[in-house]
Amino acid sequence: MRVHIQNALDNPLFAMTAVQWQEAADRAGESHSAYALSIGETEQDLTAALAEAEALITPPAPLAASLPLVAPALRLIFCTTAGADALAPFDRLPPTAALVCNRGIHGEKAGEYATMAILMLAMRLPAFISAQSRSLWEPRYTPTLAGRRLAVLGLGTLGGAIAARARSFEMSVTGINLSGSDHPACHRTLPASELDSVLPETEFLLLACPLTPLTRGILDYRRLSLLPPGAGVVNIGRGALIVEDALTDLLFSGHLGGAILDVFGMEPLPPVHRFWRTPNLIVTPHISADDPTTYNPRTLDRFFTALAALRRGETPLNTVDRARGY
Amino acid sequence: MRVHIQNALDNPLFAMTAVQWQEAADRAGESHSAYALSIGETEQDLTAALAEAEALITPPAPLAASLPLVAPALRLIFCTTAGADALAPFDRLPPTAALVCNRGIHGEKAGEYATMAILMLAMRLPAFISAQSRSLWEPRYTPTLAGRRLAVLGLGTLGGAIAARARSFEMSVTGINLSGSDHPACHRTLPASELDSVLPETEFLLLACPLTPLTRGILDYRRLSLLPPGAGVVNIGRGALIVEDALTDLLFSGHLGGAILDVFGMEPLPPVHRFWRTPNLIVTPHISADDPTTYNPRTLDRFFTALAALRRGETPLNTVDRARGY
Repeated sequence: MRVHIQNALDNPLFAMTAVQWQEAADRAGESHSAYALSIGETEQDLTAALAEAEALITPPAPLAASLPLVAPALRLIFCTTAGADALAPFDRLPPTAALVCNRGIHGEKAGEYATMAILMLAMRLPAFISAQSRSLWEPRYTPTLAGRRLAVLGLGTLGGAIAARARSFEMSVTGINLSGSDHPACHRTLPASELDSVLPETEFLLLACPLTPLTRGILDYRRLSLLPPGAGVVNIGRGALIVEDALTDLLFSGHLGGAILDVFGMEPLPPVHRFWRTPNLIVTPHISADDPTTYNPRTLDRFFTALAALRRGETPLNTVDRARGY
Repeated sequence: MRVHIQNALDNPLFAMTAVQWQEAADRAGESHSAYALSIGETEQDLTAALAEAEALITPPAPLAASLPLVAPALRLIFCTTAGADALAPFDRLPPTAALVCNRGIHGEKAGEYATMAILMLAMRLPAFISAQSRSLWEPRYTPTLAGRRLAVLGLGTLGGAIAARARSFEMSVTGINLSGSDHPACHRTLPASELDSVLPETEFLLLACPLTPLTRGILDYRRLSLLPPGAGVVNIGRGALIVEDALTDLLFSGHLGGAILDVFGMEPLPPVHRFWRTPNLIVTPHISADDPTTYNPRTLDRFFTALAALRRGETPLNTVDRARGY
């Protein structure tokens, strides 16, 4: 079988190697000789490989740049990121190739990032960091997390891991998903249609849902204003879940207590963006969910699992529903 | 019984009230009429009250400013802070009054602060915060905490709570105390005499021990240099545990990866101090262990418990050993 791995030019830390491929094949009990592997970085590499490749492992960006795909033999597109939204609306991908994304790989790290972010907001770290830049000693004492109200929007791998961590700090956790179906780590789970009623009693709002036509801009000025004064916002989902100017305005006005953002509508965040200098806002450069020591091995293990499912005639786990968008 | 509560002029958030006193008396099953309560803020208030007071509830600062004490009836000095080091060497306190400190009240909050600080260092937040101030997008990916090596110096309430939290993130936790006696939250516990052998394998060093003649300056340039390149330091014990210039030098040189400090040799930290502008150093203004919603009620409960022990002829829990210093 011909397999092509496309690495992103701008992210060498996560470039997959032939050695990682062979180690993953060994773990999966697959023979090296059953595969012809190519690895590339440029658009030419990708185009050449797609003439014959039956499986493709790639982050979405290089693929999105090469649409529509001419890939007559392609059966599996394994997208190495958790979300495939950069490829939407999917109509320029070969309809016969399964599109599988890497959902579920980010839980542990994201749970740690969210724990850190919630604790930083609870302890008013953004204000202390700002005070430090002016050499000001301005103590503010804050209660512990026990009993404080967290709402987690999206209960996939990320949201579930975060809810579980929050429970270990005895927070009161409300989960919100499309269906409102129960999640074991949440005290209660509500459907997205009840978001407006949850926001006024939310001290910490954590966004961990995929970006879809339904969630784009879901946190607009009206909804963000429903949060109580002093509330904190954490976004590790996708930047476009939030109307960025609305968030900035509510931080400048002091209605919101703080925000910690790891994802943005445009990444890298442009140097002129207001976010860099918005009070009580901390920017991190999309690092909340990636662990370089385990990312490639786990991703390749998932690729082999998806391939085995296809061979059995099954739908691989994490196959993107092209209509739903994730 | 005559009881005097002395509140600190500079910290009104934690000022105790007569209502809090009465509620605590009710919880302790004590009759209000058995006590004559005075509450004061000024040095004159304290001096006047000490002429007759049998019990005194106070932070150490106002007391330290009034030494030597003229307090002929005093049987109990209940110090509302965890450490009584500000009153050392204790020879100007009435020798017949028990000196009890408020050790153990700070565990939960300190565990949360330390968790936040360790996660911030692990995820290189100090570098991101510095990058944000220059509008720079500079991703650095970091592994999760699982398996990473934490050393906790001091295994009292703070250190024990921190070790337990770190275990929940699957860190490898080494505890260090005077005796080296086991602690249930640590994978291993070593005596302070083995500190030099622990430091080279410590990725995160957390200081949570009292300030005594033995621990003053224990983290000097030589010992801090034993930490491996990139290590992080968190101090929630007392500022003078660390030789501050040594820490600053090792952060400027880049040998240490970062530090998060909540306590300082001089507080408030003077505006000219190097710490305000040291790279990869975050300053918080001594807020790591105080929770204003529960502090006074819990403190007063502990006062009544100490008083009951004295009445039974017992030594109250948390009586300061004047020779040992805590």
